[in-house]
Amino acid sequence: MQIGINQYRIPQNSKIDLTDIPTQDRNSPPKRVIRDEMVPQLRPQLRDWQEKLYAENKQSLLIVLQAMDAGGKDGLIKHVMASVNPQGVHVASFKQPSLEELDRDYLWRINRALPRRGEIGIFNRSHYEDVIITRVHNLIPNENFPAKLVDKDIWKKRFRQICDYERYLCENGYQVVKIFLHISKEEQRQRLLDRLNEPDKLWKFSSSDIKEREHWEEYQKVLSEMISATSTEHAPWYVLPADKKWWGRFRTMQILIHHLEMMDPKYPKPSEEFMKNLDYWRKLLDG
Amino acid sequence: MQIGINQYRIPQNSKIDLTDIPTQDRNSPPKRVIRDEMVPQLRPQLRDWQEKLYAENKQSLLIVLQAMDAGGKDGLIKHVMASVNPQGVHVASFKQPSLEELDRDYLWRINRALPRRGEIGIFNRSHYEDVIITRVHNLIPNENFPAKLVDKDIWKKRFRQICDYERYLCENGYQVVKIFLHISKEEQRQRLLDRLNEPDKLWKFSSSDIKEREHWEEYQKVLSEMISATSTEHAPWYVLPADKKWWGRFRTMQILIHHLEMMDPKYPKPSEEFMKNLDYWRKLLDG
Repeated sequence: MQIGINQYRIPQNSKIDLTDIPTQDRNSPPKRVIRDEMVPQLRPQLRDWQEKLYAENKQSLLIVLQAMDAGGKDGLIKHVMASVNPQGVHVASFKQPSLEELDRDYLWRINRALPRRGEIGIFNRSHYEDVIITRVHNLIPNENFPAKLVDKDIWKKRFRQICDYERYLCENGYQVVKIFLHISKEEQRQRLLDRLNEPDKLWKFSSSDIKEREHWEEYQKVLSEMISATSTEHAPWYVLPADKKWWGRFRTMQILIHHLEMMDPKYPKPSEEFMKNLDYWRKLLDG
Repeated sequence: MQIGINQYRIPQNSKIDLTDIPTQDRNSPPKRVIRDEMVPQLRPQLRDWQEKLYAENKQSLLIVLQAMDAGGKDGLIKHVMASVNPQGVHVASFKQPSLEELDRDYLWRINRALPRRGEIGIFNRSHYEDVIITRVHNLIPNENFPAKLVDKDIWKKRFRQICDYERYLCENGYQVVKIFLHISKEEQRQRLLDRLNEPDKLWKFSSSDIKEREHWEEYQKVLSEMISATSTEHAPWYVLPADKKWWGRFRTMQILIHHLEMMDPKYPKPSEEFMKNLDYWRKLLDG
């Protein structure tokens, strides 16, 4: 049982507005307690579940990570997945689509990046970019896309398509969990300034991040609508207060463990025939 | 400087016989010192190098791992790569080739699994299986392969093809490092018995492992010839004594750090123009 995460889960058919949702939890324990006591308790749990998932080799856990720029996705992946066996983790980062990708439908590259059975997959950005930045900048569709398919309902259609796609995944052994790291505009400002001021972080800075900031309010609107429309029973969104990085990471670990508990992977049971032969194999090795 | 690893590196054009090479180092420090003192010193080094490699985004480090069954590849990946950012690590496990893979040349699936620039790639088994198990059991080639291309020189040709391929990779930004975890037949016996005797390890046991043991001597011969023929300046083999798991893992970390030092990745330097604009961006954020 992971306590306290349900408050972040967006129920199906609800209508949220991100500007109403806090980017900090007022009554969270202090950083020291989280970092030195609570996170270390979760690490072995996460590791054990992942080993079982891998051994069972039947289901996959797919984590979709979205956030505004500098929202903390990269750092979260690094910290949450530390000490989990990298052999069972597959991280896919979706940047600007390549020409080859633009030449297909928007879910094509997503599908190619799915984790295998037994793996935990992490999408650093995802198909949701195609209803976020694509929408804010009206980038849809690429020039080869049939104009007659572009109507004022295109975003609603995409929401439905995404829900359909994720349901298909769930019906085929994937548990899809979507996490939005929710930060304030002020926190983003601070983090971008940090990147400018620390030489070893400078490479992370992109001037486009600042240009995108001008559209902050529009992004929040588009994101609110998207999360409302695509949080489902089978593939829920969690909106995590992430101004404090360590808090978002801790809550994410809880969420992963919660869903792994629900998936309940088990070490494979050897067949009866195999068990009958056990002594035979032992003797062969002893001989 | 990583001390002591050069003794395991097989020089180009040398002729080794694995049966002459010990599977344990007599004068290694005790496990406790390695585990509690020496490995913890290496972890932050490995992490820092990997961050630079990722930030630089120009070169890749490709680790090829081979061993006899139960040689410790999976455990090594888990322990060595713990606390390295999984976003920059790509593990590819090569099992029995699929029908789709058999329908192509043997390097086709290898090439598809290469890490991206900036990543550390780990091959759990590799193209070398096509000159090991394929050779011991004379599995070459699949039925569609033109018979006239199969002659008594096929293994020599493959050695040359592999060296050519790896040189091509090196000339295109990959550092290829190959590690053979060297265990004794007795150690393998013990590990397979452990799998049979511990319920949570039973799923790792495969009766084919025992059947393959009958070919132990032939495997050692084929492996010796392969390592001799394919250890090159640009893509060297290291033969690590691996009866003690913790020792092989420690030495592997040293080897990775050594090669990362040689690659010497650097945080990208921003352009002069970018630096001129730095104050402009700061002001925009402050405003």
